[in-house]
Amino acid sequence: MKLGDSNEDCIIERLCTQLTQLDDVIVGPGDDCAVVQLENGELQLQKTDCVVEGVHYYPDEQAERVGWKSMARVVSDMAAMGGTPHTMLVTLILRSNTELAWVESLYKGMQKCADAFQFSIVGGETSSAPDASANMISIAGTGKVSKESLTLRSTAKPGDAIFVTGSLGGSLAGKHLDFTPRIKEAQWLALHCKPSAMMDLSDGLAKDLPRLAKLSNVGFLLEPENLPVNPECSLQQALSDGEDYELLLTVPNQQVEHLLSLWPLERAPLSRIGVIQERSEKNSTLDGGWDHFH
Amino acid sequence: MKLGDSNEDCIIERLCTQLTQLDDVIVGPGDDCAVVQLENGELQLQKTDCVVEGVHYYPDEQAERVGWKSMARVVSDMAAMGGTPHTMLVTLILRSNTELAWVESLYKGMQKCADAFQFSIVGGETSSAPDASANMISIAGTGKVSKESLTLRSTAKPGDAIFVTGSLGGSLAGKHLDFTPRIKEAQWLALHCKPSAMMDLSDGLAKDLPRLAKLSNVGFLLEPENLPVNPECSLQQALSDGEDYELLLTVPNQQVEHLLSLWPLERAPLSRIGVIQERSEKNSTLDGGWDHFH
Repeated sequence: MKLGDSNEDCIIERLCTQLTQLDDVIVGPGDDCAVVQLENGELQLQKTDCVVEGVHYYPDEQAERVGWKSMARVVSDMAAMGGTPHTMLVTLILRSNTELAWVESLYKGMQKCADAFQFSIVGGETSSAPDASANMISIAGTGKVSKESLTLRSTAKPGDAIFVTGSLGGSLAGKHLDFTPRIKEAQWLALHCKPSAMMDLSDGLAKDLPRLAKLSNVGFLLEPENLPVNPECSLQQALSDGEDYELLLTVPNQQVEHLLSLWPLERAPLSRIGVIQERSEKNSTLDGGWDHFH
Repeated sequence: MKLGDSNEDCIIERLCTQLTQLDDVIVGPGDDCAVVQLENGELQLQKTDCVVEGVHYYPDEQAERVGWKSMARVVSDMAAMGGTPHTMLVTLILRSNTELAWVESLYKGMQKCADAFQFSIVGGETSSAPDASANMISIAGTGKVSKESLTLRSTAKPGDAIFVTGSLGGSLAGKHLDFTPRIKEAQWLALHCKPSAMMDLSDGLAKDLPRLAKLSNVGFLLEPENLPVNPECSLQQALSDGEDYELLLTVPNQQVEHLLSLWPLERAPLSRIGVIQERSEKNSTLDGGWDHFH
């Protein structure tokens, strides 16, 4: 069987069953980041991600924006865990005919993101790619998170309200390169109204909400009329386009009023889009979203 | 200018001058691993690396061995800093026509390395690669190291003796896939005779010794007749083939006798191959070794 004959989630599940982790791994594969306990008891977020030419960006894209995106994707995952980025490593796999000026701009965009979110790019690795290959940029990062702020995908409960930040759909028009990871919003939430579960939206709500529901062993009722659809988009695009890099979160029902009354106006808009239910066959999937292999 | 018009070290140097690190980064780009100080004062090693189809392995290679290699390369870098691996993350960028069985074997080899060196594979990322692309595997890891054991590339001193473990050259005949990272040897050294400087040999002695010398601002006198050349190889191969994954280390002259008398026989052989000198134009370069772009 080839990867293209299966789907991404099934493949990853099958691969990960082969892995075993030692006791200090608090959260292994499956969430936005891994969570590892350090010797002094503190928690560390660990995450790897990549952007691939022809998949996540096109060759004529400005390199600086690609550099920003490659870093901001990892920052977004750390935000979704309730944490903040600390260090990043860069792996570049590039054809020899790549312009050095392009790579320098790429690094400029990466450092811009490091300045904006106060982390350090501490090293990397550079390899040649064969001539016919796409260029690839892989980023690995560590982040800080307190035990109190740590928020997982797997802890939503029936009755919880479902929220998203910002608006959904149409990311390819530009936002996918220039988005601002929702660190401020996630840090505000950790402090004022900790979500029962949270993740970032990278493959589209239609793909990501079922993932959160599966890990939490719950179902959901989505209220399509309440989705914050980007003005230029259809409902299906808002569900399926992907690369929204918004926060998807659940909040116990009794905290909803408190949250909405406190949510600061200068933050991204916050929309209530549904409710978590007991899991059944009928309320655990949606059509659409991005799959890398299928 | 294209990457292929320059050389790897110049490119990396040019890119890294754009980066700034915060105060808790003890060692940034340039050594085998980055070294980051955690909030409690402990040090953490951070490293990323990759193996690329057609560059680091061929498509008909056994996937399990490729998986082992991808992890063992990072372990080797941590050994060279005097540390041990703790956690790893896996980025896979694969064509949709890749056999799932191949990827499962790849993971088997990775977990085998995790079992052998007692680290956890804590997560990863999977992306599709365009059809004409090479498959790529990028590994990012964290490692533990004590302040007392930490060994850098940049601290060799004139008069120090230069040593290598094992034998050099001919790695492509098989060793490049099955090598044992020199963790035991490096840990023994940290405990019994801490090197003044150390690195792992990945691009060939002809490339790597000048790197160590440059970072230490020293030169070297290499004694070719003392190189532990692999029996099937020429001297030039031993200098240039690369992928030896042996330790290159320097030891203050007054400790050499002590080191040689204590070095345990069951470890890899240890060969004295030269001496560190004051840096001059004549004693800081060698011809050969692997360059990704030139």
